[in-house]
Amino acid sequence: MTQAPTPAAGSPAAGSAATAVPPGTGVTAARGFRAAGVAAGIKDGGALDLALVVNDGPRRAAAGVFTSNRVQAAPVQWSRQVLKAGAVTAVVLNSGGANACTGPTGFQDTHATAEKVAAALTAAGGTEVGAGEVAVCSTGLIGVHLPMDALLPGVDTAVAALTGDGGEAAARAIMTTDTVHKTAVAGPGTTAAGGWVVGGMAKGAGMLAPGLATMLVVLTTDADVDAAGLDAALREATRTTFDRVDSDGCMSTNDTVLLLASGASGTTPPADEFTEAVRRVCADLAQQLVHDAEGASKDIRIEVTGAATEDDAVEVGRSIARNNLFKCAVHGEDPNWGRVLSAIGTTSAAFEPDRLDVAINGVWVCRAGAAAEDRDLVDMTGREVRVTAHLAAGDATAVIWTNDLTADYVHENSAYSS
Amino acid sequence: MTQAPTPAAGSPAAGSAATAVPPGTGVTAARGFRAAGVAAGIKDGGALDLALVVNDGPRRAAAGVFTSNRVQAAPVQWSRQVLKAGAVTAVVLNSGGANACTGPTGFQDTHATAEKVAAALTAAGGTEVGAGEVAVCSTGLIGVHLPMDALLPGVDTAVAALTGDGGEAAARAIMTTDTVHKTAVAGPGTTAAGGWVVGGMAKGAGMLAPGLATMLVVLTTDADVDAAGLDAALREATRTTFDRVDSDGCMSTNDTVLLLASGASGTTPPADEFTEAVRRVCADLAQQLVHDAEGASKDIRIEVTGAATEDDAVEVGRSIARNNLFKCAVHGEDPNWGRVLSAIGTTSAAFEPDRLDVAINGVWVCRAGAAAEDRDLVDMTGREVRVTAHLAAGDATAVIWTNDLTADYVHENSAYSS
Repeated sequence: MTQAPTPAAGSPAAGSAATAVPPGTGVTAARGFRAAGVAAGIKDGGALDLALVVNDGPRRAAAGVFTSNRVQAAPVQWSRQVLKAGAVTAVVLNSGGANACTGPTGFQDTHATAEKVAAALTAAGGTEVGAGEVAVCSTGLIGVHLPMDALLPGVDTAVAALTGDGGEAAARAIMTTDTVHKTAVAGPGTTAAGGWVVGGMAKGAGMLAPGLATMLVVLTTDADVDAAGLDAALREATRTTFDRVDSDGCMSTNDTVLLLASGASGTTPPADEFTEAVRRVCADLAQQLVHDAEGASKDIRIEVTGAATEDDAVEVGRSIARNNLFKCAVHGEDPNWGRVLSAIGTTSAAFEPDRLDVAINGVWVCRAGAAAEDRDLVDMTGREVRVTAHLAAGDATAVIWTNDLTADYVHENSAYSS
Repeated sequence: MTQAPTPAAGSPAAGSAATAVPPGTGVTAARGFRAAGVAAGIKDGGALDLALVVNDGPRRAAAGVFTSNRVQAAPVQWSRQVLKAGAVTAVVLNSGGANACTGPTGFQDTHATAEKVAAALTAAGGTEVGAGEVAVCSTGLIGVHLPMDALLPGVDTAVAALTGDGGEAAARAIMTTDTVHKTAVAGPGTTAAGGWVVGGMAKGAGMLAPGLATMLVVLTTDADVDAAGLDAALREATRTTFDRVDSDGCMSTNDTVLLLASGASGTTPPADEFTEAVRRVCADLAQQLVHDAEGASKDIRIEVTGAATEDDAVEVGRSIARNNLFKCAVHGEDPNWGRVLSAIGTTSAAFEPDRLDVAINGVWVCRAGAAAEDRDLVDMTGREVRVTAHLAAGDATAVIWTNDLTADYVHENSAYSS
């Protein structure tokens, strides 16, 4: 596993790691995949800005989940169509421009990119690849057209650079305000006797929100799983990982998570075992997104317990995660449980105000809706802050991850497009 | 009118002002009211922290609206009961402590405060006042008990200080992080020939959100209107003023708006005329709240047009107002319309993404969901920033007011309770 923070007890990243990880990282950890990350000149200054992931098969099954924002970038509109067939041969991803809110021209640019990738792969490999097998992802500023005169030649460069250990370069090429690249691997591992893995890469540091956190994520596996099996595993895995990250409450126009299977291991794992491996990679990457969120100084783990339903628990957790006053208090290392109660009070979840308990980093500062243990006992100096909100209304629970609100967040996002 | 900012065209504060305002300001502009603001020692350092407003009649009609937060402070629970009878003789308000999340002891403290006010007024005035005629409001930190040994003697001081021009002192005594006190007056004015006014005071600078912005507001009038008439006027007035302010998306546990009528003018105005005067005072005070919001450097007026319904327009406006990335962009004077579209996309309002238009300070930077006029034409250097989002789905409109998100907001709210 690369770049994974030390998993906290009960964190989504807890327990990962294969027994025998192959040399490739991220999207090239699984057999049957090549990847590349190159500098096409979309960004200034020669930074990596174009990634390509190719599935060499024998299987080319795929599943995807996309942003629930109704304003969707051209690449999301395109890739949704591609994924309907359940087969993807290549994914091309660019940073340096989101190609969102760019009108018909933007969609034509995405189409032209897919056509270019298909043509270049066909020329390089001898076998026919169609544009309808090429998913496209973009990230960067909204409302700006991509420099196609740089991007299209970059595709040729990327195809030429494809390699079985290109996972790290691809992960680096999709970074925007990310400070580190993000990859993860899970599964029983690849040995001479067989085995399989799930690997992946992610980018995202702002616009983390429900429906999907940020972001661009490509997952690959050499397990032999069909499109329906991938879809089921991916939806279950994202439901409790990326969907439970709410860094700043802002939902992107470009969120995409793709899962590609090459079948190169020849092994079809039990569905629950495969789903768990996908979930572990998603949890690991989600944790890395939280840890690298724009301007954040704290990772906040909000656990809601005693809820009547899981939906109630998620609603309450998200309400706390989106409360700017609470996020500022955590930044100030102030165990201000009143702001937690205030946030809970705006939800429709089942609870009685005088039965609410709140713990911050293990100290029950609020019992039965009023002050309890001494707030001075709470140590909030560490990076991770754990908040537990007990609703005393049932047995359901959920964990939501968020960040504090900082002057650095304001600074980074007030200057971003200038 | 005191402390009113220059009203912008179309702003809720536009057009205010009486022809002949009496000497009292705020809650003592209307005849039949006395008020006081004193230093009871609830706050440190001798600051004013206890306000009292007394209705000397002949009528003692009242109406109120309260926070829709389900976690409600003890004074809100108390005052809701008092208002059910539609008659209020006095309102006592303290800053320096919200008396929220304080359990049964907190409710006993509120009850004791009302009893003390009733007893002191009875002793001072000779006529019997019951605790059930005394509304109570508190503002300050959540989860901390009020220093009753300071507050109760302070009530005697306040009763002794009651005067017909105590409106300003009362407005000063309810300030917390407010930098200025806030009062307003509207209505035809009081002359020898008759006439009537509506006056009011407000506090609130953070926790401004829907359902009610912040805040404590007391409105008074010498018009002769019964409780039902007051209730109808107040609900209509707050619906399009305080309910449309969303400074930081955080809803308070203590929000209260009270409207008291003395009937001292002997005049019963037409309902629409009276409602309009109440609306004007509410709009004026709401504008002052936005202008004084914690750490804000911009007042943002979000007008949603072309909506299918007013509810759609409000939902879209509020979604934009609560988008931290958008609020940071405004702080950076960056006309980042992509973040506006992103926020619209998260709503359930009727619209087509490729028909959305956005103007910032009059420049249509987005037409038909894509870039239009040159963003460099947008001048965002002034305090007020006007955003127009046109949904092209109907004829309904709404205006929501919010603020930018600044490092000062973070600083103020990370240190507030420490």
